[in-house]
Amino acid sequence: MTENRKQKTENHLTTIAALGSHVGQVVTLQGWVYHLRSSGKVRFIVVRDGTGLAQAVLVKGRVPEEDFENFGRLTLESSLILDGQVRADARAPGGYELEVTRLQPVHIAQEYPIAPKEHGVGFLLDHRHLWLRSPRQQAILRVRDEVSRACRDYFHDRGFVLIDTPILTPTACEGTTNLFETNYLDRGKAYLSQSGQLYLEAAAMALGKVYCFGPTFRAEKSKTRRHLMEFWMVEAEAAFYALGEVMVLAEGLVRFIIQRVLEHRGADLETLERDPGPLKTAGAGPFPRISYSEALQRLQSQGLEVPWGEDFGGDEETVLSRMFDRPVLVHRYPRSCKAFYMEADPEDPRLALCVDMLAPEGYGEIVGGSQRVADLDVLLNRVAEHHLPPEPLEWYLDLRRYGSVPHGGFGLGIERVVAWLCGLHHVREAIPFPRLLDRLYP
Amino acid sequence: MTENRKQKTENHLTTIAALGSHVGQVVTLQGWVYHLRSSGKVRFIVVRDGTGLAQAVLVKGRVPEEDFENFGRLTLESSLILDGQVRADARAPGGYELEVTRLQPVHIAQEYPIAPKEHGVGFLLDHRHLWLRSPRQQAILRVRDEVSRACRDYFHDRGFVLIDTPILTPTACEGTTNLFETNYLDRGKAYLSQSGQLYLEAAAMALGKVYCFGPTFRAEKSKTRRHLMEFWMVEAEAAFYALGEVMVLAEGLVRFIIQRVLEHRGADLETLERDPGPLKTAGAGPFPRISYSEALQRLQSQGLEVPWGEDFGGDEETVLSRMFDRPVLVHRYPRSCKAFYMEADPEDPRLALCVDMLAPEGYGEIVGGSQRVADLDVLLNRVAEHHLPPEPLEWYLDLRRYGSVPHGGFGLGIERVVAWLCGLHHVREAIPFPRLLDRLYP
Repeated sequence: MTENRKQKTENHLTTIAALGSHVGQVVTLQGWVYHLRSSGKVRFIVVRDGTGLAQAVLVKGRVPEEDFENFGRLTLESSLILDGQVRADARAPGGYELEVTRLQPVHIAQEYPIAPKEHGVGFLLDHRHLWLRSPRQQAILRVRDEVSRACRDYFHDRGFVLIDTPILTPTACEGTTNLFETNYLDRGKAYLSQSGQLYLEAAAMALGKVYCFGPTFRAEKSKTRRHLMEFWMVEAEAAFYALGEVMVLAEGLVRFIIQRVLEHRGADLETLERDPGPLKTAGAGPFPRISYSEALQRLQSQGLEVPWGEDFGGDEETVLSRMFDRPVLVHRYPRSCKAFYMEADPEDPRLALCVDMLAPEGYGEIVGGSQRVADLDVLLNRVAEHHLPPEPLEWYLDLRRYGSVPHGGFGLGIERVVAWLCGLHHVREAIPFPRLLDRLYP
Repeated sequence: MTENRKQKTENHLTTIAALGSHVGQVVTLQGWVYHLRSSGKVRFIVVRDGTGLAQAVLVKGRVPEEDFENFGRLTLESSLILDGQVRADARAPGGYELEVTRLQPVHIAQEYPIAPKEHGVGFLLDHRHLWLRSPRQQAILRVRDEVSRACRDYFHDRGFVLIDTPILTPTACEGTTNLFETNYLDRGKAYLSQSGQLYLEAAAMALGKVYCFGPTFRAEKSKTRRHLMEFWMVEAEAAFYALGEVMVLAEGLVRFIIQRVLEHRGADLETLERDPGPLKTAGAGPFPRISYSEALQRLQSQGLEVPWGEDFGGDEETVLSRMFDRPVLVHRYPRSCKAFYMEADPEDPRLALCVDMLAPEGYGEIVGGSQRVADLDVLLNRVAEHHLPPEPLEWYLDLRRYGSVPHGGFGLGIERVVAWLCGLHHVREAIPFPRLLDRLYP
């Protein structure tokens, strides 16, 4: 292989995505065989290089005989280096074609296990390391990249400072049932974080507006199309933010993400055969807002009876989210079904100053947020009511001892947003190497 | 507290950092008391709000009497809302002053545990959730944010796609000694990742150029100023990259980071009393490159005898890095002291095509990278030589079965870079909530 590297010509090395800037020039491409075809004295290779697909044409007599012969050795996914002249051709995939002058195989692939035929999901997940090479999976990963960048740009542009919250945590705030546990050397048990929120609250009292963006973990025995054991979440927290400001911030983020994906990843949505229409509608906003009580009535009108005080499950979320053509903000759930740190609604203390955002088209919850309890005594009561051990939470209680302020924030699940934007059936395709209830490989 | 919110006036809400755009206007600031002082009929509050420090002045008779009285209740770190007119004042911290017209305490803080006096490191780490509020810690976190953004921008601008590699992994490639272990529900043991590299290699065969950026874990019993149990690493991997291209990419990244921090975070470096001179020199490049053999000779000239074949420890790195006024690239270490996946140097197969980058001023290793073994048989031999179980690595071996290409990449440790740029003695201050050998709280 090293030898092949040395034979590399001195033509301009470029990528398939950049071919348009080199029409008429002789360039070098490095990539893999996506498709092979022969027709008389002409050989066609559809090449992929991670930036796109392009057709390369070999005409007998116009390439060295050895190179023409080498075409016969190529197999799907073999790697190669091609030199050739770039031609505009409206019929070619991508709009450009390479008239090959040099073909150097780098490695001849064994028979590639993923054929164009349909494979079962189990087989594809077993071969996730290869499945990523398909145009569809590449498109999803590029949309995911754009979603990540959009989140970071959105917060940065608004003065939020990145705070990387810890993964290894000593406490299990909402019980240890759904937590991965490990031994922290000689210091006892540690748990993998399911949210950076409590730590973000501390940082918000220092820097005003902060966000984190990292992996989170739930050892939950649920096997639905919306659950992963390991998933990425972006969370924001701001001092002096009330619920209203949290809702504005969350809606702004989701609209910004949609607009950025529509603007930059249109070709990928096309690869995914994702109709951009519903995304354009959603991105235009504004998002409807309904209270929990109103949501209950709407569910009842569809024959779904949820007793007051209970949280919504996947089914209810699906039904609710289908009632709107853009994400809907459902606010002020009963406190009884929400976390201990949520501020009570002064208008009706049975309710929490919280909000969930449900994506349309049946995708369900993508955001959860709230205003947090600011008063020390109220928080101490909550800790007691929820039977939480106060000692490991001392530092969190300190935030209410030293200059407490109203504050709030939210978390957004990246895989669910990517699944929705890409129109995926299951979140497992929205992350490079999914960790599912029954899957830890590769 | 809710009542206080409602009293908020309708003046323009702004931040300390933005005061300069509001000279002569009456604005509202929300923040915390950083310092208090009285002088005759004038009261001074230095306020912090996460964006900076500003002096607020209360003159008896020019604020409501109740507000003037309220000054007497204020304590360090009490939270408050201030209305006032912005005045340019060269003597004031930040260059602007607020002539207060309204003072609303939000919460009167208990006696703040962190006094301006010196505290021991143990005490400060116990109070990390409050320590973050100090100007020095805020400055470090802002530099960290800039370093993160610079890394992401650098790779994005060069066509690298973000690939979030998994944290929970089934295999322990280089032994399980230094790995955190957890139970993956009914699927047996899982380990917390110490590098995303192997997964990135798979993604590079799909997308050409990829990077990951996330937390990594080492359950190492080392207690040095360069080690954390949990730290953040940015790693890049590119198909068709040889060692030379890996070195260019890594040098470019570090120079880009330095330039961005100098450009955007000069005020924070000043807060940290960090002399920007050495950073300007380093950022200008080019970085010197020496081989492992040359490094051995240089160490010997300083009286440090390292037997050929051994890796450098912290002491050797410190001595080497002090010999240069910018980062130095040390390449081609003996294979015997490096990882199984590194390509051998065709010129001298005892050597690996690898590189470490050592930061100047005694900061030691910040980057480690290499070209990876591309040939299946060579890799199989390596797996056997290192007594690794081949089954869990089957997917990784597959990358050499289906269109293998020369490829390489590197990882850069964020906390070490932040510690160097900020001139910190220990990496523990370079991460919001450090996880140390003896520390998991808060």
